[in-house]
Amino acid sequence: MSGFALALHGGAGALRPGRLAADEEAAIRRALAECLEEARAALAAGAAALDAVERAVTRLEDDPRFNAGRGSVLTSEGCVEMDASLMDGRTRAAGAVACVTRVANPIAAARLVMERTPHVLLVGEAADRFALAHGVREAAPGSLVTPARAEELARLREGRAAREAGGTVGAVARDARGHLAAATSTGGMAGQLPGRAGDSAAIGAGTWADDATCAVSGTGHGEAFVRCALAHEVDALVRLRGLPLAAACDAALARVAALGSRGGCIAVGREGGPVLRFDTEGMLRAWLDDTGRPRVALYAGE
Amino acid sequence: MSGFALALHGGAGALRPGRLAADEEAAIRRALAECLEEARAALAAGAAALDAVERAVTRLEDDPRFNAGRGSVLTSEGCVEMDASLMDGRTRAAGAVACVTRVANPIAAARLVMERTPHVLLVGEAADRFALAHGVREAAPGSLVTPARAEELARLREGRAAREAGGTVGAVARDARGHLAAATSTGGMAGQLPGRAGDSAAIGAGTWADDATCAVSGTGHGEAFVRCALAHEVDALVRLRGLPLAAACDAALARVAALGSRGGCIAVGREGGPVLRFDTEGMLRAWLDDTGRPRVALYAGE
Repeated sequence: MSGFALALHGGAGALRPGRLAADEEAAIRRALAECLEEARAALAAGAAALDAVERAVTRLEDDPRFNAGRGSVLTSEGCVEMDASLMDGRTRAAGAVACVTRVANPIAAARLVMERTPHVLLVGEAADRFALAHGVREAAPGSLVTPARAEELARLREGRAAREAGGTVGAVARDARGHLAAATSTGGMAGQLPGRAGDSAAIGAGTWADDATCAVSGTGHGEAFVRCALAHEVDALVRLRGLPLAAACDAALARVAALGSRGGCIAVGREGGPVLRFDTEGMLRAWLDDTGRPRVALYAGE
Repeated sequence: MSGFALALHGGAGALRPGRLAADEEAAIRRALAECLEEARAALAAGAAALDAVERAVTRLEDDPRFNAGRGSVLTSEGCVEMDASLMDGRTRAAGAVACVTRVANPIAAARLVMERTPHVLLVGEAADRFALAHGVREAAPGSLVTPARAEELARLREGRAAREAGGTVGAVARDARGHLAAATSTGGMAGQLPGRAGDSAAIGAGTWADDATCAVSGTGHGEAFVRCALAHEVDALVRLRGLPLAAACDAALARVAALGSRGGCIAVGREGGPVLRFDTEGMLRAWLDDTGRPRVALYAGE
């Protein structure tokens, strides 16, 4: 295979076969496959890993089936508040936004924070203003809120549904020059308090990339991921303990499990195919396997 | 000595002897000594490490000489925006706020996030509203802005001063039962963009505590600390490499230095006295030494 590697996720959670309608499941598989193919083609044409992961996450943000950008879950007050972050393994440059509400693509805002400011994280209304002033597309009022998410919040409020963590999208890539990058974006947890930011806005928790070790994007119970510094923990286990990447991901997720939480992560290392690990019932995911073949899967054991 | 351990910092930076007026220097030393004594007495009376570090940071927030709470530096728009975080080594429970503007004590808000929500981080106006609704004292309008900070911003705007990182306050403690805790609070960087959050709001970057390893509070160039996951890196070096705490702090700070940035950190481990390391010209600090004697120092080599 060529030197590049690629994986995407669309969130980990309680996802059993049969829970999704057949047409919905097929649409999710198709969306993941198309997103993978777009990023694969970009990498094959020489795109930088950073551009590939941003492009993949942008596409997942735009798809209302995923909890990021349009289709984000709603806060307890019925609003969309989005977090995103990305990191460039070449220099460990990083950018992130938390609790943005007006931009169509939070990951584009995160990239601008990285490239156009001396900062790593901007939050709230100021982050929206900054991103819009720098050309990020503004979401039409109300366009981020989908009927399905409004209904989900109503069920939560009436106690007809359990709060679920884990809806997030992310991508990791190694490009043909061996550079790594990771990007993560989310609408957070359905029913979360206004102002809550989770691991997807947190460099070191939901996102990490270092050419010397690996690029990681996480999905799961964000608070537990922060309390484990999940993505940086994977890096540390590879760098300080010499663990293979899959073992590092498992060990980092075991620390999340020890806090009573679950989730998953995708990672690429300096060589070989990507690693996709989770301890939930499912994780929406797509990747190029060790032979370069595109793969899409939703459930455990698939 | 008894089993408890304690250290505070009031920020690392370009602080040479003679730069501060003699009475200002004396006042800072006195403030640090009084803060140390209050936290020491609490620990000696059986206070939990978490309560001791919160108390110490609250006192430093209230003192206009330090860049946290009242006396915070101003953003490019002339406002105070404050970050704070704390972590309890018993369970790795954590709480943080970013870009709060109305609470007198951001560290109290961070503790409420930890104890009264399922979340780790709340940001912006929503975080202020949450904290005020739960009884955190509201700062009188304008009271957080001091004349010295307004003048500093004016000098920055006119190019008469260099932007300086590193103003932060923090505390780490081990209590008589062996539990660890860390707390950090800051007004950020003078002239920073509105909405910027740095390492002091970031669990894993500016703050970490785990009874199994250490408690850490950092101060320095926040963006570099985030890109090194400084506080979690110290934990990882102790846990995964078995480094002594001082060596772990030095190695973590060396990663910050490799990014072209500087700073310092204070830490306590499972036994022994605290560790205080920095590669700047000075770090405002106070601690109980290995014999339990109170110490205060500002400059390197002191």
